[in-house]
Amino acid sequence: MNRREPVELSKSYLLLNHGPVTLVSSAHGDKRNVMAAAWAMPLDFDPPKVAVVIDSRTLTRGLIEASGEFVLNVPARAIADKVLAVGSQSGRDVDKFAAYGVGTMPASKVGAPLIDGCVAWLECKVIPEAHNEKRYDLFIAEVVAAWSAPDVFNNGRWSFHDEGQKTIHYVAGGTFFATGEEFEAK
Amino acid sequence: MNRREPVELSKSYLLLNHGPVTLVSSAHGDKRNVMAAAWAMPLDFDPPKVAVVIDSRTLTRGLIEASGEFVLNVPARAIADKVLAVGSQSGRDVDKFAAYGVGTMPASKVGAPLIDGCVAWLECKVIPEAHNEKRYDLFIAEVVAAWSAPDVFNNGRWSFHDEGQKTIHYVAGGTFFATGEEFEAK
Repeated sequence: MNRREPVELSKSYLLLNHGPVTLVSSAHGDKRNVMAAAWAMPLDFDPPKVAVVIDSRTLTRGLIEASGEFVLNVPARAIADKVLAVGSQSGRDVDKFAAYGVGTMPASKVGAPLIDGCVAWLECKVIPEAHNEKRYDLFIAEVVAAWSAPDVFNNGRWSFHDEGQKTIHYVAGGTFFATGEEFEAK
Repeated sequence: MNRREPVELSKSYLLLNHGPVTLVSSAHGDKRNVMAAAWAMPLDFDPPKVAVVIDSRTLTRGLIEASGEFVLNVPARAIADKVLAVGSQSGRDVDKFAAYGVGTMPASKVGAPLIDGCVAWLECKVIPEAHNEKRYDLFIAEVVAAWSAPDVFNNGRWSFHDEGQKTIHYVAGGTFFATGEEFEAK
């Protein structure tokens, strides 16, 4: 599931538009981490921006503040157990990559890694907004590169060929919804 | 589908957590409007806050700036055609309530109406953040009351009993995903 092709920046909002849960990966110096974030959304089309909530108590928060970079990874249902695991533990207590067998690939424009088993990846550089970060734990970033698994997202369209490829939406307490039937409104 | 029961404020984030598309309703003086917004997310648990992107060119933007209030309505698939219609036209050009047969109910704490055919409603008061609004079209608000259709969301859990009750996720160009299968990760 790790073949990937570039996604045009102007279409990268489509990777988040339907509200899937994300994995936030980050790195600084010799430290790196990955956590889950349901509270992420597109903020602009072109140049593309995103907004994401990163709790001040997380290791991820420190790595993003130090590096000014992160990746929003869109996981497939096949790795839902890992999404829950990395969302339930702190990177201060455990190396989540080793503990949960989370593989990575290098990103192209940021130091944070791309996470294996995802179907889309948005490489992001923080637009510093100290007030939002401090008061709301809210980070705004520009998307500087984007990728998708080409059999799952191509030419601006999602095509899920099996259950394991589907994106997922977090509810609470370990419960998710898979992305469901596609339909056209009139 | 318009029976509704209050949702505890501390659980109201669950109405948006899985990333459904929303309808933003607004009112000021004798004007009111409704538009679609896919870029909305929870921002905090308790007191609950939300973030939503409202384009500066919309009638809704003016009504929200004047009143400091709006409602985030979570539409069911049964009204997907109306969601697309109110997302495709400006309230400056047409009374969308009359043109598309969009019914309303009064809210409890804000002047903006609750939209018929939805399964959840979050009444919101804007927390003024001029810089975010001007630079990013981003509005932050506190949820001051929340409601759900009790057969669809009750005690913090979603239960969709038929296709028409499902929440929906916007892709682009009139295409949506229905909320899909619920599952537990381990």
